[in-house]
Amino acid sequence: MAIKIYDLAAADENRRFSPYCWRTKLALAHKGLEFETIPWRMTEKDQIAFAESERVPVIVDGSKHVKDSWAIAVYLEKTYPDRPSLFGGDAGIALSRFINFWADTVMLMAIIPIAGFDIYKSIHEKDQGYFRTTREARLGTKLETLTASPERIEAFRKAIDPVRKTLETQPYLGGEKPHYADYIVFGGFQFARCISPAKLLEPSDPVYAWRGRILEAFDGLAAKAVGYPV
Amino acid sequence: MAIKIYDLAAADENRRFSPYCWRTKLALAHKGLEFETIPWRMTEKDQIAFAESERVPVIVDGSKHVKDSWAIAVYLEKTYPDRPSLFGGDAGIALSRFINFWADTVMLMAIIPIAGFDIYKSIHEKDQGYFRTTREARLGTKLETLTASPERIEAFRKAIDPVRKTLETQPYLGGEKPHYADYIVFGGFQFARCISPAKLLEPSDPVYAWRGRILEAFDGLAAKAVGYPV
Repeated sequence: MAIKIYDLAAADENRRFSPYCWRTKLALAHKGLEFETIPWRMTEKDQIAFAESERVPVIVDGSKHVKDSWAIAVYLEKTYPDRPSLFGGDAGIALSRFINFWADTVMLMAIIPIAGFDIYKSIHEKDQGYFRTTREARLGTKLETLTASPERIEAFRKAIDPVRKTLETQPYLGGEKPHYADYIVFGGFQFARCISPAKLLEPSDPVYAWRGRILEAFDGLAAKAVGYPV
Repeated sequence: MAIKIYDLAAADENRRFSPYCWRTKLALAHKGLEFETIPWRMTEKDQIAFAESERVPVIVDGSKHVKDSWAIAVYLEKTYPDRPSLFGGDAGIALSRFINFWADTVMLMAIIPIAGFDIYKSIHEKDQGYFRTTREARLGTKLETLTASPERIEAFRKAIDPVRKTLETQPYLGGEKPHYADYIVFGGFQFARCISPAKLLEPSDPVYAWRGRILEAFDGLAAKAVGYPV
């Protein structure tokens, strides 16, 4: 039976833009596990209350459910150990945790100033009030100020310097092959691509080529998703 | 025969402050390998020319020599596979690379504005002209401006947020036990401690306790080194 994933959707239910849900969908594909997505809007808290979560992703795997993208990745690794590894061992899990926190606190926080208002314009109108209230309180600014500028694109490119330098020395963050660490960081790019026309990377950037390889992985799972050209 | 390491020294030859050399010394200790340090000053390029290097660390292991802290760590892992692992497998090497670049480009770059002038004041007078010329050109500012301020300490603490968040969920960056990733990041703290009286961390910070454990590891290898109290 396919694993179900509650997956954040915009007004267009085919526009799936959560960076955390993308991490999970790519992890499921990496494990070769069949999955089906359930479109979910931010204010549909009741639909995922069974998992004691107010956010997605939430997965349902038979009789079990797991919330939080990090917990889901570790669950998949432990539950399906004979399928391709997401982490390459316990040290890989521990070290990927740092990359997970780096992506959450640095990378995504450098995308929000560029794409924040694009998110607002794309999401379902029933989510817009909730989104505005929570994000404006958290960020201390009006959503209308969160739009792309050359300075913000430049700041984003500088923020991902450790990714760039790593990819100058090896094909993937996980080494010769993509690992969950790659999906963590790619999730941020896919989030941006699904919601915003801003061009985050120059084609000459080594990160651009790496992103392209993951876009095309798993029969183009990420490339085929509704979004903007990169 | 003990492995030799060329180790950056200040005017006081017992003050060893290079973050990169500390990574290597802790990696050697982790592997349980005997080593002896050779104090080296920045302008003594001729002494390490045999290794085709202008910087330290350089190690000499019998008939072999290796330069660059990252290359040395990988060399030790491959050459001494039966001793405690620094990386926990190939994925661990790949993922630690990201942390290495993060430490170099983000963490150390947040320490230099705090401790840059302290370095100048501590190093051997024969190194001072070289250090001033190269660093002022690279940083675009006079060394005298690179001194601790509450704003810079605050910026440093914010910069290490991914370290803090990781250590709130697990004892070491490498998981249950320290790995090379821990020594990478610790090297930055030890660098600061050896050269500057600035207090980088509050005792209530989870990073403080982690730093304390590594200071005391290997019979206090780092704690006993000449430097300032943390």
